[in-house]
Amino acid sequence: MQISFSRGAPSLDIVDIDGLREAADRAFRSDPGRMAAYGTAVGYPPLRAWIAEQHGVSPDRVLVTNGSMQADAFLFDALVRPGDAVIVERPTYDRTLRALRARGADVRMVELQHDGIDVAALERVLIAGTSPRLAHIIPNFQNPAGFTLSAEKREQLLVLARAYGFTIFEDDPYRALRFEGEPLPTLLSLDGRDVAYASSFSKTVCPGIRVGYLVGPEDLILQIAKLATGTYISPSMVSQAIVFEFCRSGALERSIETVKTALRERVQTLCDALRDLLPDARFTPPQGGYFLWVDLPRDTDMAALREAAARRGVQFVRGEDFVLEGAESSLRLAYSGVTPAEIEEGVRRLAEAYTEVGTVGAQAAGAPAG
Amino acid sequence: MQISFSRGAPSLDIVDIDGLREAADRAFRSDPGRMAAYGTAVGYPPLRAWIAEQHGVSPDRVLVTNGSMQADAFLFDALVRPGDAVIVERPTYDRTLRALRARGADVRMVELQHDGIDVAALERVLIAGTSPRLAHIIPNFQNPAGFTLSAEKREQLLVLARAYGFTIFEDDPYRALRFEGEPLPTLLSLDGRDVAYASSFSKTVCPGIRVGYLVGPEDLILQIAKLATGTYISPSMVSQAIVFEFCRSGALERSIETVKTALRERVQTLCDALRDLLPDARFTPPQGGYFLWVDLPRDTDMAALREAAARRGVQFVRGEDFVLEGAESSLRLAYSGVTPAEIEEGVRRLAEAYTEVGTVGAQAAGAPAG
Repeated sequence: MQISFSRGAPSLDIVDIDGLREAADRAFRSDPGRMAAYGTAVGYPPLRAWIAEQHGVSPDRVLVTNGSMQADAFLFDALVRPGDAVIVERPTYDRTLRALRARGADVRMVELQHDGIDVAALERVLIAGTSPRLAHIIPNFQNPAGFTLSAEKREQLLVLARAYGFTIFEDDPYRALRFEGEPLPTLLSLDGRDVAYASSFSKTVCPGIRVGYLVGPEDLILQIAKLATGTYISPSMVSQAIVFEFCRSGALERSIETVKTALRERVQTLCDALRDLLPDARFTPPQGGYFLWVDLPRDTDMAALREAAARRGVQFVRGEDFVLEGAESSLRLAYSGVTPAEIEEGVRRLAEAYTEVGTVGAQAAGAPAG
Repeated sequence: MQISFSRGAPSLDIVDIDGLREAADRAFRSDPGRMAAYGTAVGYPPLRAWIAEQHGVSPDRVLVTNGSMQADAFLFDALVRPGDAVIVERPTYDRTLRALRARGADVRMVELQHDGIDVAALERVLIAGTSPRLAHIIPNFQNPAGFTLSAEKREQLLVLARAYGFTIFEDDPYRALRFEGEPLPTLLSLDGRDVAYASSFSKTVCPGIRVGYLVGPEDLILQIAKLATGTYISPSMVSQAIVFEFCRSGALERSIETVKTALRERVQTLCDALRDLLPDARFTPPQGGYFLWVDLPRDTDMAALREAAARRGVQFVRGEDFVLEGAESSLRLAYSGVTPAEIEEGVRRLAEAYTEVGTVGAQAAGAPAG
C-alpha cells in the first residue's frame, strides 16, 4: 500500500459527497437561469455576497475564481512586473514561488519563525532599501511549516506595509481548519486598504469543485475583474452555485467540523508516532491545517531518505522545494490525506528508511558534513 | 421589454436544466473520488477520453479547460510573443482580437468572404513576407459573420500552413449547431500536425458550466498542461464530470436537437422580419450558429442607430467592434438568446430606429459621405 504524505489534499472520507449532491440538486432547482448562463468575472452573485458578509466587506470588494491559485495568478498579473521585489516567507508554498519566478519577480525570502514571519528581519530588509511591491504571507497553519502568525506580528506587519507602501497578500486557505487555540483576526479585518486576501473552499468543501476567492480594495478588484473577463469571461457558475447552496444550508459548518475532528486526530497520531519511532525528528505541532514541518539532523541525506522511503511506498516533499536554497535536512508531512492507521504505518516505514540511510551515512562518515 | 441581439448566448428555454441536474446527481454517485479531488490540468479523465474519441485522436492530445476562452488564453500564452504576426479573419470575434492585442501580437486581418477567409489574399500577405506564428480561423458559422469556410478553402489553408510553417488555430464552438446543409470536415481531421483545435460545451450544454477544450499536437498539449498546472492546478472536476454524464447519457444529442430546432426557427423569423421591415438590410442567412451579419447602406450613422435602438430597448453590437478599422455600416445580430416573438418585435423597433436615423441623415444630407 502506498502512503502519501506529499499532497495537501483531503482524503475522500472527510468530503461530504451527499451534501454536495444535494446542494447541486437544490441549486439547479432554485436558480437555473444564473447557473446555466455566462456569469460575469466577479463570480456567482449570491456566493459573492455570502463571502462579503463573512468578511464584513462590500460585495464590490470580492471576486470569486476557479480555485484560489487562479486568484493568485490574477493578483500577480495585476501587480507584479519583472524585477519587482516580492517578500515571501522562508519556507513557503512551492507553487507560489514558481508563479512569482515565472513572472520575473525578484523574490526575497524572510525567515519564518514559530510565530510567523520574522518581522524584525523584514524591517531590516526594508531599511536596507528593498521596496517590495507585495509581501506574500500565509498567516494560519502555514504551508509548508504549519506555523501561525501571532496577533502582535499581524499588527507589526501592517505598520510596515503602511510605512513602506507595499501590499500584503494574505493567502489564507486554512483559516477555518483551526482544531486548537483561538482564531486570530485576519490582516484584512485589521486594515482593508493595504491587504489583498485570498481563500478557498478546497479545504472546507472539496478541491475538485475549484472555487476560491480574492478580497481587496475595490479598484484592485475592478482591475482584476477585467483581466478575468479577458481570460475566461466568467468562472464556473455551476461550481459556485453548488458551493453557495452548500454554505447556506449549513452543510459547510458540518463539513468543517468533520474535517477539523479528523485533522486533530491525524496530527496527534502523527506526532505520537514520530516521537515513538523517529526520535531524531524535531517539529512543532500545528494548531490547524494540513502540514507538519520536520527537521532532521543536519547531516541527513534527504535524497537518500526520500528514495529509501519511496521504496517502502511512502512519499513526502523535501524541505528544499519550499526555499530558494537550504532546508536540506527538512521535510514536509501532509496529514490531510491519510487515515490514522496509514499515518502509523507510514511513520514506521519512514523510520525504517531513516535507519537505513543513517547506516549508509555512518559508513561514509569519513567525509566532513557540508 | 428589453430585447437583446447582442449576446452570443442561449436563452434559458433551450438549456436542458433537468438533464443537467440528473447528470450532476449521477456524477456524484458514480465517481465521487475523482470529482471531489484535485484533478490534473489536462481535465477530468473520462471527459478527456470522450472528447478524444469524438475527434478520433489519442487522449494525450486533449486538454479540457474552464471554458474555451481559457483554452485560447493558454494557447496564446504558449505560442504568441510580442511582435509575432497573427492572422485573423476580418471581421472576427472581438474577445480574440483583444486577447491577441493584449499579448502584443501584430494582428493582420484578412478579409472574410461568404465561403470563409480570402485564401488568395492570405497567400499574397504570406508572399509579401509576413511570417505568422498563428492563423486564427472560426470555420463554422463564424462569429460575428455567420459564414462557413468551404471544403476547398480548408484544403488550401492547410497547404499554406505547411508551406509557410504556421499553426492554424481552429476555433470551432458552433460546429454542432448546423441546422442546414452538410457538415464539413474539421481542419484538425484533415491535418493533425499544423492545427490547434478548440471547442466548447457552452453552446451544446450551457455556458455557465464553463467547459471547453483544446486538441493539438502532443508536445503542445504537454506545454500547455504545464502552464495550466501553474495557473490553477486543475479545472473544475465537478463541472467536467457533470458534462461527461450529460454526454454519455444521450442528453447531449437531445440538447443539440433542441438547440438546432430553435436556432433554425429563430434565424428564419429574423431573416423574414428583416426582409419585410428593414429592406435596406443586406445579409446572408447562416447555416448554423448564433449570428447574422447585416450590412446597411454606407452612409448609415451607426452610433445614432444604436442609440435610437437602445431608446426602444433593443441592443446589438456594431460591426466595427469586430475589426481594427472599417465596418462602420454593419452590425451583428445574435438570435440565440431571443424567442421568435421577441425577434419580430425587436426588428420592428430596429426598423423604426433606422427610419428615425435615416430622417436625421437626410436632414444633414448637405455633408458629403465619409
